[in-house]
Amino acid sequence: MNTPLKGAAIIGQSGGPSSVINASAYGVIRTALDSDCITKVYGANHGIVGVLNDRLMIMDEEDPAELERLLFTPSSALGSCRYKIADPDVDDTDYKRILEIFQKYDVRYFFYNGGNDSMDTCNKISKYMAKVGYDCRVIGVPKTIDNDLFGTDHCPGFSSAAKYIATSFMEVSRDSHVYDKGMITVVECMGRHAGWLTAAAKLAEVMGDGPDFIYVPEVDFDMDKFVKDVSECYKKNGNCIVAVSEGCHYADGRFVSEAETSATDGFGHAQLGGLAAKLADRMHKETGAKVRGIELSLLQRCAAHCASGTDIKESFASGAAAVNAALEGHTDKMVGFECDRTNGYVCKTKLFNLADVANTEKKLPLEWINAEGNGITDGFVEYCLPLIQGETPMEKENGLPRFCNLKKVFAE
Amino acid sequence: MNTPLKGAAIIGQSGGPSSVINASAYGVIRTALDSDCITKVYGANHGIVGVLNDRLMIMDEEDPAELERLLFTPSSALGSCRYKIADPDVDDTDYKRILEIFQKYDVRYFFYNGGNDSMDTCNKISKYMAKVGYDCRVIGVPKTIDNDLFGTDHCPGFSSAAKYIATSFMEVSRDSHVYDKGMITVVECMGRHAGWLTAAAKLAEVMGDGPDFIYVPEVDFDMDKFVKDVSECYKKNGNCIVAVSEGCHYADGRFVSEAETSATDGFGHAQLGGLAAKLADRMHKETGAKVRGIELSLLQRCAAHCASGTDIKESFASGAAAVNAALEGHTDKMVGFECDRTNGYVCKTKLFNLADVANTEKKLPLEWINAEGNGITDGFVEYCLPLIQGETPMEKENGLPRFCNLKKVFAE
Repeated sequence: MNTPLKGAAIIGQSGGPSSVINASAYGVIRTALDSDCITKVYGANHGIVGVLNDRLMIMDEEDPAELERLLFTPSSALGSCRYKIADPDVDDTDYKRILEIFQKYDVRYFFYNGGNDSMDTCNKISKYMAKVGYDCRVIGVPKTIDNDLFGTDHCPGFSSAAKYIATSFMEVSRDSHVYDKGMITVVECMGRHAGWLTAAAKLAEVMGDGPDFIYVPEVDFDMDKFVKDVSECYKKNGNCIVAVSEGCHYADGRFVSEAETSATDGFGHAQLGGLAAKLADRMHKETGAKVRGIELSLLQRCAAHCASGTDIKESFASGAAAVNAALEGHTDKMVGFECDRTNGYVCKTKLFNLADVANTEKKLPLEWINAEGNGITDGFVEYCLPLIQGETPMEKENGLPRFCNLKKVFAE
Repeated sequence: MNTPLKGAAIIGQSGGPSSVINASAYGVIRTALDSDCITKVYGANHGIVGVLNDRLMIMDEEDPAELERLLFTPSSALGSCRYKIADPDVDDTDYKRILEIFQKYDVRYFFYNGGNDSMDTCNKISKYMAKVGYDCRVIGVPKTIDNDLFGTDHCPGFSSAAKYIATSFMEVSRDSHVYDKGMITVVECMGRHAGWLTAAAKLAEVMGDGPDFIYVPEVDFDMDKFVKDVSECYKKNGNCIVAVSEGCHYADGRFVSEAETSATDGFGHAQLGGLAAKLADRMHKETGAKVRGIELSLLQRCAAHCASGTDIKESFASGAAAVNAALEGHTDKMVGFECDRTNGYVCKTKLFNLADVANTEKKLPLEWINAEGNGITDGFVEYCLPLIQGETPMEKENGLPRFCNLKKVFAE
């Protein structure tokens, strides 16, 4: 491998946050601070936008005990962005600026903590730096509750969201079965194109409080079938509780839920939501039943109080592995996980090519969806259950979470 | 006091459940099972409806270790109902039937675990039994996340909901401040007529993640003022996060949110919801900002995984106190709390007259609402903070809550 490369490091966070994205960032920051090669550790304020705007926070200036609380603090503590970086062959303005900042602070290590789009950004920066001959090691640190990153067994952030969804589903299921007169309950989980999060409701079944049906975007949504499924179940049991993905769509591709507002995010993705209320309302009209539509909304991606202990540990490990890989000379890679479930659960970090990961979405395997397209099979449970084990040792103060509060000392 | 009264006891649960309603029920069941006077302990399946239908579960048949898990199990384990019992002077059919069942099983103790409407039911049954000369002690065990019961310092169930709301609010606040481009977030809490739950968002401020504004039903909602408040805050800070009660209403009494569906519950209360989405949508139109409307929905009343340790203990104590009061000869009472916060927090159980409690709603004191009507004062924080202290020692299995599963052995 390469000879030791002395210089500063930047860690940035991008895209929708998660309960444990800061645990990954802390893995990077702590390991970088402890390294002899890395001379200074900067946190980019709002991801690549912070680099472009020269807004770098000096992590060396933070109190170590406070930094450690990143392990249990949800949302991106360094600030996030949804900034679509141009194709360098079309417009290299941003890249020139990034190079300028890298040179200004002698940045030789760049770590980017995010999902698909972030891995694309990472890949483009890596290629540009190689092209212009600037020696800089670029490693992606995965984060996405959506669990849709290619290659890796699973993504940091997914496990905690899955634990929250399964836990909340159990609780809501108990609540919605409480009355003498039945109820139809529709719980909506995130997932534009992939049903991983919604499938997590299936885990509640292990404890006897699972959903009657699960609808994921990997299968075209058929409203008539849905109405039939739910009506029959309600008629038979006097109750019905289902989980649906926000991204459920008809065969022609139209989302069952229209955009919650006319807003789209920076990448042109429609902002979805409101499906649970719409489906609940439809079922009220069909059956006259009392109904509830519950949208887990942001709660499912920020509920650090219900984070998976396994996820926290693995997220930290992925950040640490990114730094160690960079120190060893790797670049243009993303850290992912390779897991073995044959004799208990064993998870190891592994490097993937950024180019393979960027902009590829990994969907729920079709063999984990039942033949009727309205349920999830046990194969998924075997895959997912190990990921939600362990509780967060989050510190409490005043009966509430004690999150990390950074001083945010900016460079210059 | 009266001489010891030998006989069976019935415990029933009614109304919307909470995270700790079963902790109260367990207080009744455990104490009744341990009493020499009480010969048998029945759980009415779905509250008073279970009595009317002769659906009584024998608690003596349950495994003691499983019963203990009621402490950490959300929703009404015995089943709930929303059954409006008639005025006995108008129609005494139900009362005759209840008497028949009481006589059949030699029931001399009746405990009813619920909110305002349940205390009214309790009061009517108590009066009827006195009128017909059937010796039976009737005690109400309070439950309501709404915290709107008269007399008592606070209600079992409120504290856990408040802890969940404050915790979730902190997490959502972190999430909604993450981007470089600002966001307007509206979090909707339950509370038809009283703002207690929504006020709990204020607790998040103690940890630095509080709301910019809070709107409660004790103050008439003014849409122009709301738009002005939020727009100015968003303009100034690039971000705004508010908490609103589902019961926010205009000066003429109309709910800002119309009914979620045309359904009403058994007491004729409109089922509300969707306010957060509506207000978020309005603010998007006003400001063009990215917006999120988040409805905490059932989650806030069933999130046992985030229950207050204090609430669990007090709920159990209220159930135990109900049995002890009945054994001492009291009847036609509700157990409530009397608290002292002068030198730390001390909470004692106290008996209140059912007639005083039934159908009276205790609203948020106006001195705890700021002059502008868009915030909550520190007086509320001093009142509420002691209630959310302590964590639940809930048992986990497979990384998920291990709730109580009753055998449900029915009498006869």
